[in-house]
Amino acid sequence: MELLNDEFYMRLALNLAGGASGQTGVNPVVGCVVVNGGRIVGMGAHLKRGEGHAEVHALNMAGQQARGATAYVTLEPCSHYGTTPPCCERLISEGVVRVVVATTDPNPLVAGRGIGRLREAGIEVEVGILERQSIELNETFNKYIARKLPFVTLKTAMSLDGRIATKTGHSRWITGAESREAVHTLRHRHGAIMVGVGTVLADDPELTTRLNVPGLHPTRIVIDSKLRISETARVLNSEAESIVVTTEAADESKADRLRKLGVEVLRCGAGSRVDLAEAMARLGERGISSILLEGGGVLNGAMLEAGLIDKLMLFYAPIIVGAEGAPSAFSFGGPELMSDVMRLERVTMQQIGEDWCLTGYPADKSGSADGAEAAPSLA
Amino acid sequence: MELLNDEFYMRLALNLAGGASGQTGVNPVVGCVVVNGGRIVGMGAHLKRGEGHAEVHALNMAGQQARGATAYVTLEPCSHYGTTPPCCERLISEGVVRVVVATTDPNPLVAGRGIGRLREAGIEVEVGILERQSIELNETFNKYIARKLPFVTLKTAMSLDGRIATKTGHSRWITGAESREAVHTLRHRHGAIMVGVGTVLADDPELTTRLNVPGLHPTRIVIDSKLRISETARVLNSEAESIVVTTEAADESKADRLRKLGVEVLRCGAGSRVDLAEAMARLGERGISSILLEGGGVLNGAMLEAGLIDKLMLFYAPIIVGAEGAPSAFSFGGPELMSDVMRLERVTMQQIGEDWCLTGYPADKSGSADGAEAAPSLA
Repeated sequence: MELLNDEFYMRLALNLAGGASGQTGVNPVVGCVVVNGGRIVGMGAHLKRGEGHAEVHALNMAGQQARGATAYVTLEPCSHYGTTPPCCERLISEGVVRVVVATTDPNPLVAGRGIGRLREAGIEVEVGILERQSIELNETFNKYIARKLPFVTLKTAMSLDGRIATKTGHSRWITGAESREAVHTLRHRHGAIMVGVGTVLADDPELTTRLNVPGLHPTRIVIDSKLRISETARVLNSEAESIVVTTEAADESKADRLRKLGVEVLRCGAGSRVDLAEAMARLGERGISSILLEGGGVLNGAMLEAGLIDKLMLFYAPIIVGAEGAPSAFSFGGPELMSDVMRLERVTMQQIGEDWCLTGYPADKSGSADGAEAAPSLA
Repeated sequence: MELLNDEFYMRLALNLAGGASGQTGVNPVVGCVVVNGGRIVGMGAHLKRGEGHAEVHALNMAGQQARGATAYVTLEPCSHYGTTPPCCERLISEGVVRVVVATTDPNPLVAGRGIGRLREAGIEVEVGILERQSIELNETFNKYIARKLPFVTLKTAMSLDGRIATKTGHSRWITGAESREAVHTLRHRHGAIMVGVGTVLADDPELTTRLNVPGLHPTRIVIDSKLRISETARVLNSEAESIVVTTEAADESKADRLRKLGVEVLRCGAGSRVDLAEAMARLGERGISSILLEGGGVLNGAMLEAGLIDKLMLFYAPIIVGAEGAPSAFSFGGPELMSDVMRLERVTMQQIGEDWCLTGYPADKSGSADGAEAAPSLA
């Protein structure tokens, strides 16, 4: 049984925030619950960039009952004028007497100033309730706001022996219906989805979000150094935005034809292959804060080797495909010694239908997260 | 909180049985708890082949208090004279009034006769309490008693992308200390351990059980079609029994030198490679009821393709090795279509230190469990 305490209300606020995951663009997801006299009097979440913050929605619902109330907010209230007025001022003017905050805002424009402003105004502020959960909920935002680089989640579906197809290239289906539904949910939650042109040429996927309820489509990014993509590829259709990332050397007339279709063409890298680290920087500038990488083994391997992966989600089907000639989920050479291989940390496992999804984070990303030094390039 | 009921006592009996797992040879593990007037008056487990059954130990402890008692037994009490007198007669003569049995004995010499004998004598018998748990506890016995074939568990330690070494062959260590300890526990619980001669030539392992407490060593089986094994290989030392399985064609003088070292030489297969299905039949006749397969990718693949694997335990380390040139845990071609690949069922996942152990059973083994038709052979 859940106990009624600060954690209880903060957990509810985190649930409100999590519900809006994927629909706030480059903004964080935030939830707020306002409690007065033992009753919840307001609740809200930030739902869309440019619209009201969580506190505003919750305070609107609370109305007069905000006076003397406690507000639970999953992220430090803002103190600056952005696209909306600062939430701190609103909390103060409504007469809230206590604010419980899960975690401070990594946005350098806020970063403690919100909490300071509330305390100046005589409001009791408590920080750190369910802090870890709140940080995890905004892991993409936390990277993007600090470094203007997209947070990249590598997702792959494979057999227990690490294969993404049989020796003949047959790959439908590896995982079950529930896992595929989970992947479409991930698409809804990411700003962009990324594949290599090989996948486009082989499977002609649309890369949209298809669920039993309407979902948001991510921007579709195709890594295509030689602009081999067909102008009739489904990934370029009007269902969602499309970006083709290529090199300086790629044919300009083809690029022009793609632009006429409404496709954005980004040139990254002067060599024969796309400079993946530069691509990440450019996509970040372009406002893409999170990328779901659904590449084949070669793109997965290149992104991993370049240190450009922030998170891995490996969907294992309970099958054994056999090794001879069957393509791997990570096609790269890797180091010579076991002690030098890439290690994941914070690994968790979730059963999804008959499959298992392993989630983990590359260990020791601190020094090389943008991979600028070691970034190879890719066809 | 555990409720005091039939399941409570049966769970205790199953725990007693499980404690003796690995030390009863080809016999099942069995536990017994005797309860009278709301108090446990006796408990016991079968500890060693040829010595007392679980019921006998528990009844000895109960003494006079067995009269009017209920006995919880994880396996149907025996009704025949084996190496010990039938437990049914002992339960009857001690005056037990109720017997709760988890599951009937798959041994054709018992198979319901024990329960029938007890009922004849006026004892109330209940069957099926925690039945699934009891069947799983004796999964090796259940196969062996019915078919005289060893139950084979394939164990492998690998990376998240299915590799058992780096591209240079470096493999120490893939998994962590806790997983390696778990593997030594598995050795204690199996009658035999099996590898290919390639592993022996490469690593010269001893294949004994090494734990912080003394454990039992499994019989060591090496598949070696051309008798390439060195006479000084550690796997042939006097720490435990050793069996080398080879072909009819292998050099008799080398076989003779091995026999002089105390090694048993089994010839299975007239061709150039060991007939693995025949090997399993011969090892079964030889009294080996369970085998832990710790092979490399080739032996693993051949045993899987031959349908000779009953269970898989895959230890995943949270690492990604990379595919190019790194050896796989399952080196075989596999089928062309995803729909034809080997599928596991009853899959569970356990975290062990920083690693994850997946346990599963090949689906649809019913028709081809001895793999006699499709059995390939192996170098």
